[in-house]
Amino acid sequence: MADRSILETFPNPKSSRDYLIEHHVHEFTSVCPKTGQPDYATLRVAYVANESCVELKSLKLYLQLFRNEGIFYEDVTNAILDALVAVCRPTWMIVESTWTVRGGIHSVITAQHGQPPAGMPRSS
Amino acid sequence: MADRSILETFPNPKSSRDYLIEHHVHEFTSVCPKTGQPDYATLRVAYVANESCVELKSLKLYLQLFRNEGIFYEDVTNAILDALVAVCRPTWMIVESTWTVRGGIHSVITAQHGQPPAGMPRSS
Amino acid sequence: MADRSILETFPNPKSSRDYLIEHHVHEFTSVCPKTGQPDYATLRVAYVANESCVELKSLKLYLQLFRNEGIFYEDVTNAILDALVAVCRPTWMIVESTWTVRGGIHSVITAQHGQPPAGMPRSS
Amino acid sequence: MADRSILETFPNPKSSRDYLIEHHVHEFTSVCPKTGQPDYATLRVAYVANESCVELKSLKLYLQLFRNEGIFYEDVTNAILDALVAVCRPTWMIVESTWTVRGGIHSVITAQHGQPPAGMPRSS
Amino acid sequence: MADRSILETFPNPKSSRDYLIEHHVHEFTSVCPKTGQPDYATLRVAYVANESCVELKSLKLYLQLFRNEGIFYEDVTNAILDALVAVCRPTWMIVESTWTVRGGIHSVITAQHGQPPAGMPRSS
Amino acid sequence: MADRSILETFPNPKSSRDYLIEHHVHEFTSVCPKTGQPDYATLRVAYVANESCVELKSLKLYLQLFRNEGIFYEDVTNAILDALVAVCRPTWMIVESTWTVRGGIHSVITAQHGQPPAGMPRSS
Amino acid sequence: MADRSILETFPNPKSSRDYLIEHHVHEFTSVCPKTGQPDYATLRVAYVANESCVELKSLKLYLQLFRNEGIFYEDVTNAILDALVAVCRPTWMIVESTWTVRGGIHSVITAQHGQPPAGMPRSS
Amino acid sequence: MADRSILETFPNPKSSRDYLIEHHVHEFTSVCPKTGQPDYATLRVAYVANESCVELKSLKLYLQLFRNEGIFYEDVTNAILDALVAVCRPTWMIVESTWTVRGGIHSVITAQHGQPPAGMPRSS
Amino acid sequence: MADRSILETFPNPKSSRDYLIEHHVHEFTSVCPKTGQPDYATLRVAYVANESCVELKSLKLYLQLFRNEGIFYEDVTNAILDALVAVCRPTWMIVESTWTVRGGIHSVITAQHGQPPAGMPRSS
Amino acid sequence: MADRSILETFPNPKSSRDYLIEHHVHEFTSVCPKTGQPDYATLRVAYVANESCVELKSLKLYLQLFRNEGIFYEDVTNAILDALVAVCRPTWMIVESTWTVRGGIHSVITAQHGQPPAGMPRSS
Repeated sequence: MADRSILETFPNPKSSRDYLIEHHVHEFTSVCPKTGQPDYATLRVAYVANESCVELKSLKLYLQLFRNEGIFYEDVTNAILDALVAVCRPTWMIVESTWTVRGGIHSVITAQHGQPPAGMPRSS
Repeated sequence: MADRSILETFPNPKSSRDYLIEHHVHEFTSVCPKTGQPDYATLRVAYVANESCVELKSLKLYLQLFRNEGIFYEDVTNAILDALVAVCRPTWMIVESTWTVRGGIHSVITAQHGQPPAGMPRSS
Repeated sequence: MADRSILETFPNPKSSRDYLIEHHVHEFTSVCPKTGQPDYATLRVAYVANESCVELKSLKLYLQLFRNEGIFYEDVTNAILDALVAVCRPTWMIVESTWTVRGGIHSVITAQHGQPPAGMPRSS
Repeated sequence: MADRSILETFPNPKSSRDYLIEHHVHEFTSVCPKTGQPDYATLRVAYVANESCVELKSLKLYLQLFRNEGIFYEDVTNAILDALVAVCRPTWMIVESTWTVRGGIHSVITAQHGQPPAGMPRSS
Repeated sequence: MADRSILETFPNPKSSRDYLIEHHVHEFTSVCPKTGQPDYATLRVAYVANESCVELKSLKLYLQLFRNEGIFYEDVTNAILDALVAVCRPTWMIVESTWTVRGGIHSVITAQHGQPPAGMPRSS
Repeated sequence: MADRSILETFPNPKSSRDYLIEHHVHEFTSVCPKTGQPDYATLRVAYVANESCVELKSLKLYLQLFRNEGIFYEDVTNAILDALVAVCRPTWMIVESTWTVRGGIHSVITAQHGQPPAGMPRSS
Repeated sequence: MADRSILETFPNPKSSRDYLIEHHVHEFTSVCPKTGQPDYATLRVAYVANESCVELKSLKLYLQLFRNEGIFYEDVTNAILDALVAVCRPTWMIVESTWTVRGGIHSVITAQHGQPPAGMPRSS
Repeated sequence: MADRSILETFPNPKSSRDYLIEHHVHEFTSVCPKTGQPDYATLRVAYVANESCVELKSLKLYLQLFRNEGIFYEDVTNAILDALVAVCRPTWMIVESTWTVRGGIHSVITAQHGQPPAGMPRSS
Repeated sequence: MADRSILETFPNPKSSRDYLIEHHVHEFTSVCPKTGQPDYATLRVAYVANESCVELKSLKLYLQLFRNEGIFYEDVTNAILDALVAVCRPTWMIVESTWTVRGGIHSVITAQHGQPPAGMPRSS
Repeated sequence: MADRSILETFPNPKSSRDYLIEHHVHEFTSVCPKTGQPDYATLRVAYVANESCVELKSLKLYLQLFRNEGIFYEDVTNAILDALVAVCRPTWMIVESTWTVRGGIHSVITAQHGQPPAGMPRSS
């Protein structure tokens, strides 16, 4: 499994306020554990930070660790959520992965940690 | 009826968390039991897993078993839901089939098992 | 009025579950009772079955019986709903007809029988 | 003012059921009472009938009576609603007029009679 | 400031009914009080009349009085609302101004008088 | 950090009324504190003023101070909100930043001060 | 075969000039000679008149004669072209029919008489 | 027939240069000579002037003369072209009329006078 | 290989004129000869007939013969062209097949027999 | 007429190469010489420079000189082209003005000086 210690954080610059952070990952690839074939996805990561924010370049490098890893869609989605929760300890986080067509089927997996705080802004 | 024993599962990698799995099947075909003519549909399968997830390649092979089977729209939609529920025992599952035009009419059949758990994420 | 005895049903393959059946009719024509000119419409028929489902080819043939019949928009919409309700005895049914432009005006008529059961799935 | 006696009705073919009737008028023209210049609008007329439905050709002919009449947007919208209410006695009715640009301004006027009954179907 | 006495009204033709009047002004221009450069906006004026309606040509001429006047976005939006409220005494009114790009920024100002009455129709 | 003393205000021309002010900034650039590479964003600033409004040209010049400053997305979004709150003392304010793609990822950060007052108009 | 004597013409009001006439028929229906099932099409008729133009209402009534006639796509398209050529004697004419889906297949048939004159205008 | 003497011209301000003038008429109505029912069209008038240009308000008033006149599509299109050619004596002119649906058919008539000069600009 | 003797023809109803016939096949499926997995395609068949036209229902039944046949994309496209040419002896024919995604790749194969005759109409 | 001496130029930085310069003016207003009412247009100015390029701020100020000037569409379009040609002496230039709706008509005027050089690039 990808080593989550590569993930870096920086102190939340405004921990006194709940605000919304969203990262949209346009390029993600891993390998099917059953066929050895490459899989492709887009990811959406949204969260309300507590003490720490994930540093964007380290997020990119962490996600690249899955490039040659054989892993199911469901597993990698939850693994990314678990890694980011472990490192950032957010108030709330959601990870959604959308996969390209395989055998005439495309899949979408969506997992969240906690619930969004009341009165939180929404991105327009 | 298609033999559901071809369906394989793998252990839910994160059974401690309710999350959303969606498979969109772009290529499905069966045969009209009345006319013997082929029918074509797209399927949406969405669920919250309990102990087991359906393995994607086995899902594809299971759905191919209907290729030469004579069966009504309503029946095949419920049969697929029943088979997946029997094999996966999900917390909640929905199957929606959208059929191509026949005699100037196109049809959509939607069946679900259970109710989506409260606070479950939605795919965006 | 079109003879509804042409409508055939088959036993609901899953009467133990409320699920949604929708038929979209792209080709419907009748005749204006005032001018004798042909009218054209698209129809949406959606229902939750009880014991019986309407067979699709018989539905097509039943709707073709209006081809040379003089009848108002409001009447034909309710007549189709009444015929399908009489034959299928559904838990809930809706019929919506959308008519092409006549004299610079186009019309939409929407009638329903019963209310959709709570917790019923929606087509996406 | 246009003579509403030209409006014809026919008996509601299904007065035992509340259902939705919508007429979309693509071609409407009257004259500005201040400048004598022609005005152009589209109209939406939606209602739930009680005992009577408005006959479509007579509606077209009634609306043509405004072709050379000088009348304000607000007045004609309410006048059409009043005439149709007087003739049909509907459970609920709404008239919405959308006017083309005059002096760089376009206007929309919306008036209703009564309130839509609970549980009434909506056009999709 | 533009002289609001140019605004004309006519008696509300249906004061016994609450209905919605909307004017969309596609062409509005004033001058920036800081730089002397022209500003351009579109306006939306919506209201429920009481005794009086604003006459459309006089509205056009009143708005043209701002053509060479130096005034802030926030000020002109409220000034137009104040003038129309003073002249029409509406039950409810809203004025929204949307301004073209200046220095890479575009702005939208929205002000209202009173609250829309319950059960009022909405334009579709 | 950018010097917020460059921000100018003018007296709210209508402090007796809650109304909505929105500025959409199409051109914003700062520098990534980790890589030294330029970042690009669009900003949405919306608020209900109290005693003061931010003057638009000074807002443009203030935002230009970030052009050569190394600062995280999350930090700059909150810093702009803090500066505008300190200078304008608004009843409510929201700042949303949408960033261009970096390493296959694009981000959106959304922060607000206070809650929108009840009955405030919405821009359409 | 439909009786073309129902077609009426009127004298070309400008036979000294080649100009383009196009009629788009949104509602056409005939019957399949093999299955007895109704077929539906849209038609495009474009021509440069010589001495005569086809009268529009008679064109509508002529095309309605195919409503209950069993005829192949290719035949009806050429038959309409032949009838209009016989009646109007145009300089040039084209008829194109586009048919709705039957058995998963839709068809387009295009036939022309003569060649468009040089320098003829085109509709935009 | 509408009296073309209402058309006014003004001297071509740049007769030393061939340039393109296009007027798009969104509101045109006449009457069907056969049924007495109103017809509606949009017009495109494009030309290269010689000595004279048509004045826009007089063009509007001239076209309004057809409001209550019974005339065929083909005739009115050529009549407008003839009137404008007689009054303006352009180097080249085209008139295109697009009519709303009547009996399920909509029509487009296109007539031109002369040929566009070589090297003439095109509107983008 | 699919038996082409199932294809039926009927005499070209207008062999004195070159005209264009196009059939768009939305539902075609065969089997990959390498993996045994189903393939899905859409087909376009366009031709100018000589003495014979292909009958549409027999075309549908002929194409269904490939449903369980293992055959390469290139082979099936040419085989269909060969069969139709042998049966119809057209002046000109083209067959184009567009296949769904397999392993992130989709393919289009286009083959023709003869050349389109000069001055033949085009479908719009 | 607007004083063209306000227009400034700067030396063409690459007179050894023909290249394309386009300015799109989103905000232009003048006054109708007949009614005294304001007119609004967008302008497209495209050219291949010879020795001189027009300076953008001076172009903006020059075009603002028409703000309160009464002038016909055709005249102002040619006047702007003449002024820019006189000041820049370009190899080729085109000016296109698109005007907002007046009396249900909108107009487009397009004038050019010279012909675009062979092999010049086009903007997409």
